[in-house]
This record gives sequence, C-alpha cells and structure tokens, in this order.
Amino acid sequence: MNALLLSIGDEVVAGQIADTNAAWLAEWLLDLGVDVIAHEAVRDVVDEIEDAVHRAAARVDLVVATGGLGPTEDDLSRHGIAGAAGVGLELDEASLQHIRDRFYRYGRAMPERNRIQAMIPEGATVLPNTQGTAPGFAIAIGSALVAVMPGVPREMKAMFDLALSPLIEAMPHERRVVRVERVRLYRVPESLVNEKIRHLMDRDANPLVGLLVSGGVISVKFTAAAESQAAAAALIAPVREEVEELLGEQVFGHGDDTLEQVVARELERTGCTVAVAESCTGGLIGHYLTQVPGISDYFLEDLVTYSNEAKVDLLGVSPDAIRSVGAVSEEVAAAMAEGVRARSGADVAISTTGIAGPGGGSEAKPVGLVYMGLASEQGTVVERFTFVGDRAVVKDRAAKAALDMLRLHLKNR
Amino acid sequence: MNALLLSIGDEVVAGQIADTNAAWLAEWLLDLGVDVIAHEAVRDVVDEIEDAVHRAAARVDLVVATGGLGPTEDDLSRHGIAGAAGVGLELDEASLQHIRDRFYRYGRAMPERNRIQAMIPEGATVLPNTQGTAPGFAIAIGSALVAVMPGVPREMKAMFDLALSPLIEAMPHERRVVRVERVRLYRVPESLVNEKIRHLMDRDANPLVGLLVSGGVISVKFTAAAESQAAAAALIAPVREEVEELLGEQVFGHGDDTLEQVVARELERTGCTVAVAESCTGGLIGHYLTQVPGISDYFLEDLVTYSNEAKVDLLGVSPDAIRSVGAVSEEVAAAMAEGVRARSGADVAISTTGIAGPGGGSEAKPVGLVYMGLASEQGTVVERFTFVGDRAVVKDRAAKAALDMLRLHLKNR
Repeated sequence: MNALLLSIGDEVVAGQIADTNAAWLAEWLLDLGVDVIAHEAVRDVVDEIEDAVHRAAARVDLVVATGGLGPTEDDLSRHGIAGAAGVGLELDEASLQHIRDRFYRYGRAMPERNRIQAMIPEGATVLPNTQGTAPGFAIAIGSALVAVMPGVPREMKAMFDLALSPLIEAMPHERRVVRVERVRLYRVPESLVNEKIRHLMDRDANPLVGLLVSGGVISVKFTAAAESQAAAAALIAPVREEVEELLGEQVFGHGDDTLEQVVARELERTGCTVAVAESCTGGLIGHYLTQVPGISDYFLEDLVTYSNEAKVDLLGVSPDAIRSVGAVSEEVAAAMAEGVRARSGADVAISTTGIAGPGGGSEAKPVGLVYMGLASEQGTVVERFTFVGDRAVVKDRAAKAALDMLRLHLKNR
Repeated sequence: MNALLLSIGDEVVAGQIADTNAAWLAEWLLDLGVDVIAHEAVRDVVDEIEDAVHRAAARVDLVVATGGLGPTEDDLSRHGIAGAAGVGLELDEASLQHIRDRFYRYGRAMPERNRIQAMIPEGATVLPNTQGTAPGFAIAIGSALVAVMPGVPREMKAMFDLALSPLIEAMPHERRVVRVERVRLYRVPESLVNEKIRHLMDRDANPLVGLLVSGGVISVKFTAAAESQAAAAALIAPVREEVEELLGEQVFGHGDDTLEQVVARELERTGCTVAVAESCTGGLIGHYLTQVPGISDYFLEDLVTYSNEAKVDLLGVSPDAIRSVGAVSEEVAAAMAEGVRARSGADVAISTTGIAGPGGGSEAKPVGLVYMGLASEQGTVVERFTFVGDRAVVKDRAAKAALDMLRLHLKNR
C-alpha cells in the first residue's frame, strides 16, 4: 500500500513552516506497511486543495493531509476535501459538543466561528481530537482513503495513534513488515561515507541502504522488508555490522539518537559530571545538553564568556594570553576548559572559542576557525577545527563537534 | 506566471530534511512576479521524478527543482528530467573542467564518479555552480521551463541569483509587481490576533492579509499586487498601520526580523550592555542572542547555572531562598538577574528559572512554569509564565519571552 502526504497551507507552500509532521507520518506509516511515495504542499485555496486531493486519490491508496482545519477564513481543508468527494458538509453534534466543552474547561464560551470546526463532509468518519478543538476525518474518494488531521503536531500525533492508525490497519493490504534502522555519525564527510559503503547501496538490495545528512549529522538508513520483524532485523543485522565496522568510532548512535542524548547516556554510565565554557557557540552546547530530560543530574553549569573580561574573571584565563595569542587560540581554549572545571568541580569540562563570522576573520584566523578544549583529571586536550558555512552553521557544527569530543572522551573512560 | 517547487530526494519526502530552499525560492520568485502555487517532494526514483516533472510541466509555467544532482547512486534528477524531456544526457566539457578544477584546488584528483555531474540533458542550458561541483540546468518541456539546482542552499542560492533568475526574467510574462510585507509579534494568541484583524482578511483583498505562526512567533503577512513597487507599498501602508495600531507594542518587528535581531538593534540604539543568567532555558537565550553578528559589542556573558550550587556560587542566590521557596520562584529569578548584572557590570540582565519537563512538575509548580527576571538600574521585575508544550517547546517559548521582555524594557529607555 502506498501513500501521499499532503500539507495544506500557504505557509507550508512558502516553506515558512518546516513541516515536521511529514517525517513523523512517513515513519509511522512505514511501520503500518505503507510506503510514502510523495509529499505535496498546496495553498489555502479551495480549488487547489480539491484538485490536489483529486489527483492524489487517483495516484495512491492513502492520502494523509494535515492542516487547514482551524477556525479562520484561511482554513479550507474541509471544503476542499468535501469538494473532491463530491459531497457537502454536515454538522457533527458530538464534535461540536467536544469543542464547546474544551472552551468551557478554559473558562470561555465557544466563539461562534469555531462552529465550523464541527462541520465534516457527509459520509466521512470523524477522527476525534483529544488534544485540541478541530476533529479530523477520513473519507473514501475513488479507491483511496483520504484523511485529514490538524497541522499542530501534538494534535496530529495523538489523532493518528488513536483514530487513523486503526483505520489504516483495517484497510485490506498485504501486511509486509518493513523495518527501518539507522546508524548515525558525525565529523565524517558524506562523500567518504559514501565511498566506504557504496558497495552496499544497491537500489534493489534488501535491506536498502541509504545516506541522509541533516545538520551535519549523517544517518546510514537500512530498510528491510520481510515477513516478520525478526526476519527483517536478521536481514539488516549483518549489513549494519559491516557498516559499523567500516565507519568505526565516529558512529555515535542508532535510530534517532542525537549527540546530546548519547553524551547524556555516557554521563549516566560513567557517573561523570560536566561543565561547559563557551565563547563563539554562545550557549548552544548548553542548549543541546539541556534538551535531554534528566541532564540536571550531570550538567552543572555553562559559562558563556563572550567578553574577554568574563573569560578572565570567571574562568581565570590569563589576560596576557589573550593579549599575546588572542582569545581564539589553543591556550585560551585550554584555560577556559580548565577554568570552568576547577570552578564547578565537574569531572569533565569542554570549551569553545572561535570566529563564527561573518566578520572578525583574518588570514591567520579565518571565519570558521574554532578551538575546543576538554579538561579532565587525565589532563587537557585541545582540538582545532575549521568549519565552512554561515554564522549559524559554524555555531551549530562547532557545538556538535564539542559534544562529539566529549562523547569520545566518556566512551573511553 | 506561476511556478511549482519540486524537491527531489528520499530524505525530503520522508521529511527528514526541512526544505528551507522552498521558503527562499518562493520569496525570490514572488519578487520576479512568479507565484509559487505548490510544492512537491518526490523520492530518488527515476520514474517518479520523471512523472512528477511531466505533471508539473503540464500544470505551471515554471518548475524549479532542487536536489539529486550529487555524484552518488541516489542522485537521479538529471536522468528523471532528461526522461521527462524525452532526450538523452550529454557531457558538458566546461562543467567537467570546472569540477576537475574544484577538486584540484583542494589538492585532490576528481573521483571518476563525479564525472556524472557534468552530464546534462541534450538541449538544456547549463546553470553554473560557483559554490560547488554540480552544475544545474534548465530545459523547456512543453510550455514550461524546468530548472534544477543542487539541494545545498548555498549552492542553490548563488546559482539562482547568477543564472536562473535572469532566465526567468527573460521569459515572456506580465511584470506585475508583487510586494510582500510582514509585521511580527510574540506573546499574543493567534486566535486573538485573528479576531482583531479578521475584518482585513478578505481573500480577494489587495493587499491580501494572512496569518502565519512559526515557533510561537506570529507574522501578519501583506501581499499586494500593483504596477510598481511604490504603488504596491501605498496599498499596503494604511492596512499595515491599522494592524500595527490594533496590535500595539507586541508588534516587535517587520519582514524577517527575529526577536534577537530587534533586541540587538535596541542594544545598539541605547548603548546598553546585557548579561543573562539561565536555568531551565539552558543556554538558549545566549544562543539566540549570539546568532546576531556584532552582538559581542553588547552581550557580555550568559551564566547557565543549572545546579543550585552554581546559582549560589556564581550569582549570589541565597541558599535559604532555594531551600524555602525553591529554585523555581520569583525570589530566585530576581536574585539571578541581579546577581549576573552585578557580576558582569551589564546595564541590563535577564534570567529564567522554571520547569521544562517532562518530569519535575507538581500541582503548585507545573511543567511549563517559568519565572523571568529583569534587573536594571530601575530595579528588578519578575514575570511568571506558564508555557504549554514538550521540553523543547517550553525552553524555546521561554527563551523568546525573555528576549521579548528585554525588548520591551529597552524600547522604553
């Protein structure tokens, strides 16, 4: 069974909203044995929605649309889908009551315009919304099932799990099991990874091996189809092991692992506490680490010492060193890591100092140059990196490289 | 003239890469008088690319595709587009030489597999790549022009400006001028904004007024069509002024302004320096501020005091206060802002302390509760917020609320 994802909304067409729903839906549909073969975005224009739903329903078995179910004038998904199905809208009393109750719970009367959210195409199945006001719905158009859910990820996900997923499972289709595994790595160029594993990347292979890069993190993706999860896992295992062998310790995790999650697990395993001193990355390392729930057991503090005075006062960096070799230097990176480690009492400390750009570069110290320090009871090491990209990219890649340096240190403890 | 954006790649279909190219292209195409009416993503499968290009070329005047021009087995855009055009691929010697030169510059010989990047469909116009190896190309299919560029944003943007944009301008089309303006605001519910300005949101109005929400920031978007930029601006001005009047001081900026950019401008205008003390936001405020080039003139330091010890040692928060009212409290938020202001000598300081979740909440202090302090020579104020969402959302909305609080303070100086 195959599916097309349809995002509805001017802002999605214009790319002003990153449609993260698609990633989530593609993964879970695959889990139900449904291949997502395309993704479309259309504007908030009734005719265009209707046309896109028509075309999609002729092309695939399942169309999963998101967005355009709000109460405003721009929200036209229900009209467009009803048009494509050739039916009118009718009031769903249960949905209206649900919307009224929800407003009541927050101490407000339902504004009259929210009534439209309880209107669904005749003959459609309501998909209840446990997280918000607008219900979704599913309706047969030709040989396809067309479902629409709110664009708000929290509402969409709960609705999919509760209501749409059982509908899809009930559709007559071959329950071939598809299993996806991923191996993730950082600090290796994509072309090098491709070179090392291209002999495994035949398009007809099972598992299919693919490469994705996002935010500098490379994922090697294994997709196997088989009669059972166990059989699919058995197909993937030897290929994944070969890839891991070829790529070595730069493989930091599996599945959706992030560097910060792996670092957090290593902190837990080793019982180490960590402190950070940032300059050019401006707090991004702290932000990444604190994305992980429970990190407060291990993460003590992050001193973003942007000014030289802060580096001197808070971290004990020598003003002479800043004067003689500059704040972006091996010496200062080392002193920052040592300084925050001594101050906080953390077992391990990492630091960054560099030139994020676009200004401030020179021949000797170009934009993208970043020194990173790591201090522990084993001593201090400093690495020198040059990142290519704009200010945001340099900060991001540097913060991740610092986390990767910390990960490798913890791994070998 | 209308256009369809086509993103090519398994990872884009699966939503694993946020296709930011689309946002950029939609904006610049509009500037050329081209309306983007849809966005599609297709997998790295020759037949599906060919099919999508066929369908798109029949539907719109211009198809702008990105991605799938790399040297690997997954990169099949040139094959798919050649197929849709009904022609074969031929070697472009100039492109091959360019690719060789590029490798040479980095001290490497061109790997044989990069040769494919110099193959373009017969009859296509080469779009030179000044930022990378793969050239793009443009070819007429039916009555449409179909162009493809690399998926790497830096390469795509340079290629569009240099090579594709002139081709599009040369296409015969009405040079109606379209002007887009935006007003941006934070901390106001979308439904309230909609209520206040819905009388201006008629779908046939010129300017068309729309609402977008991204990362909690609301944009009111004005799109006007006219014979000249001046005429379009004159159509927008009174409507934008009415909106600004209705929405008051929560309007923080225009166009693509971010909160941190506006804060940076206010810091420059007032000459104030700023310091930050973060707990639950974990460094995100520092990260946002340091996204702005040149912020180092005003941003001194950001102490991410995650542990209570760090709050006490670095910021002088009273251990008694932490014991009696807890780290997440008005008192501690105030002491953190005052502490970092005193330590750094900054004119203004902001602080956050709260419960990002998913654990750590209680009836009295639920997940999402965040206290924010702002200390200046005018004294200290604390605001209490409750944010709804997962850990990442709570952190993000809290960091932005702190920036907004700082913005309002600076604005009134």
